[in-house]
Amino acid sequence: MTNLRIPGPTPCPPEVLEAMGRQMINHRGAEFQRMVLDVTDKLKKLFLTKNDVFLLTGSGTGGLEAAVVNSFSPGDKVLAVSIGVFGDRLATIARTYGADVTVIKSEWGKAADTKLIKAALDKDPAIKAVMVTHNETSTGVTNDLTTIAQTVKPYDKLFIVDAISSIGSIELPVDEWGVDVMVTGSQKSWMVPPGMAMVAISEKGWKANAAAKIPRFYWDFGKAKKYFEKGGQTPWTPAVSIVFALNVALDMMLKEGLPNIQARHHKLGKMTRDGVKALGLKLFADEAHASDTVTAILGTDGLDAKLLNKVMRDEYDIVLSGGQMELEGKIFRIGHLGWVNEKDIKAVLDALKTALPKAGFKKA
Amino acid sequence: MTNLRIPGPTPCPPEVLEAMGRQMINHRGAEFQRMVLDVTDKLKKLFLTKNDVFLLTGSGTGGLEAAVVNSFSPGDKVLAVSIGVFGDRLATIARTYGADVTVIKSEWGKAADTKLIKAALDKDPAIKAVMVTHNETSTGVTNDLTTIAQTVKPYDKLFIVDAISSIGSIELPVDEWGVDVMVTGSQKSWMVPPGMAMVAISEKGWKANAAAKIPRFYWDFGKAKKYFEKGGQTPWTPAVSIVFALNVALDMMLKEGLPNIQARHHKLGKMTRDGVKALGLKLFADEAHASDTVTAILGTDGLDAKLLNKVMRDEYDIVLSGGQMELEGKIFRIGHLGWVNEKDIKAVLDALKTALPKAGFKKA
Repeated sequence: MTNLRIPGPTPCPPEVLEAMGRQMINHRGAEFQRMVLDVTDKLKKLFLTKNDVFLLTGSGTGGLEAAVVNSFSPGDKVLAVSIGVFGDRLATIARTYGADVTVIKSEWGKAADTKLIKAALDKDPAIKAVMVTHNETSTGVTNDLTTIAQTVKPYDKLFIVDAISSIGSIELPVDEWGVDVMVTGSQKSWMVPPGMAMVAISEKGWKANAAAKIPRFYWDFGKAKKYFEKGGQTPWTPAVSIVFALNVALDMMLKEGLPNIQARHHKLGKMTRDGVKALGLKLFADEAHASDTVTAILGTDGLDAKLLNKVMRDEYDIVLSGGQMELEGKIFRIGHLGWVNEKDIKAVLDALKTALPKAGFKKA
Repeated sequence: MTNLRIPGPTPCPPEVLEAMGRQMINHRGAEFQRMVLDVTDKLKKLFLTKNDVFLLTGSGTGGLEAAVVNSFSPGDKVLAVSIGVFGDRLATIARTYGADVTVIKSEWGKAADTKLIKAALDKDPAIKAVMVTHNETSTGVTNDLTTIAQTVKPYDKLFIVDAISSIGSIELPVDEWGVDVMVTGSQKSWMVPPGMAMVAISEKGWKANAAAKIPRFYWDFGKAKKYFEKGGQTPWTPAVSIVFALNVALDMMLKEGLPNIQARHHKLGKMTRDGVKALGLKLFADEAHASDTVTAILGTDGLDAKLLNKVMRDEYDIVLSGGQMELEGKIFRIGHLGWVNEKDIKAVLDALKTALPKAGFKKA
């Protein structure tokens, strides 16, 4: 079987795939509504939140758009903390809908500098919200979200977190860290195919929602809440199969236990980093903030990163990711989130040993 | 097996469910891109169009929102032809995003009056677009779209059609009838679970898109085109499983042949209507415009429509739909679109014979 080692979609366990293949039922019927309620409860346990949680049919980017259009009015000042492609995307979405966005950028591969966040908030008290990417898939960096949360807290801003590729696998207690709008996606830690974004909204998030004047319909949290309160409905026909699959995958996650899942990801992240360094490769990310869900590796010492991915795919049946935007051709990435174990990572490291020289790497 | 007779999600053939259960692959890899190109080509054959066709991860309502935000600027005058819940929804979406919407309403159960459309277009030459629901699921009525298209044509307006529950099962040659923006959804004629909207955009649709100032990001047709032209990519991670399933379902549809599929739906629609009338029931829809994909039936002669659906579900394992909005409790609906045959409809009619008296129906 192909070893799919990209940062999403992640491979799905057989039980989850079996659930994906279940026959359709009435999405307005009692069985499905009960399942929506169950899935929502299970998500709350794994998000560590008592906030409202909704299932939105769409990609993770749809969830980010939902966070923006439900929280802002045109002209609202927003501080966007970007450390890569996905941080830039969130800033662009907010700007697209008329927010007045100030972006704090870090050099790619580095985490956000909390001092710069503090300075920006001190400088402009009119800033209404802070938006942060928890785990930046494009660079393999995880922001120090607990410190960022502590930094933002005294300023009483709306705190929006793109947790698409973190929550579940990487620690993020939504309530404890004061996250007002949290967004994740089914194809990441949740071991389920893509097609569903999941969001959590705090009381402060609802206050922002009530004041927010950006027009919204499909992504409107208010409509999601109204239908959810009918006993587990969604305003529009949802991706029924993804709900079936989530229901099964969340049981597996609750059985493994959140601390164990996160320990597994930390161990596999470290195993990946240590393994590639032992092969003479260089990490793209600052190791102090390296992600436990995806590792980005530089194309140094003659290594053609694109050729490497081709060799790995064609000769070893291992699928890795390349670099995005400015990083295209310069890095390659190994995904290790969701349904992944030591054997999967060992197979990648073993294959790299013989594949690297075939892709021009001179140091091996 | 449950006989799921609602107007979507429709039951899926075993081959389609098997495809839904396929393991994930890289959505930026060659195999998946080739499949997106194939699925798009097959959809063009069934839409009878040479226009651009895109897959948007989301519900059908997301596709309608995409049609609106890609076509209009705030203040644009739009004529919305509504004959029920979904026509009203499309008008509401356009109004939400700032369009100046005039609604032509018909009494529910009746088709749109083309004379009123002509009169509205004569009265206000500033109207930029006409939006029509082809098949109104809430009332079981199919508009006479070819006559509406002929009526609109000389006025050279942007012609937007909600074909979510029609195209495929009911005749709608997109190019021949001059549809500029067409929207459908995976869980209707396509025999695939919900989670994907499919749209077709004409040259005139692209001109409107270039002028349209409503902010858009997730649903932006321009981004869909840019990524599609990279060789079959989507801007955001798509619902991969739905693409697998569509690929299989579209082959089945091309094998059956579009005229045969439509003839089957017409035959089953007529069989349903004749059958319920023979039981003494009254159609809600004007029979001259009754839908071949869903039949709405009045709760007359003592019939408690809600109780009937409960009896049918609990005692016969047949799932029907109720009425929506003002029609809740007043009608029940039988879906007959997608993967449906004579045996499925005969089972419904046979069960109704004994179920109707249990739900208060006095005439049987």
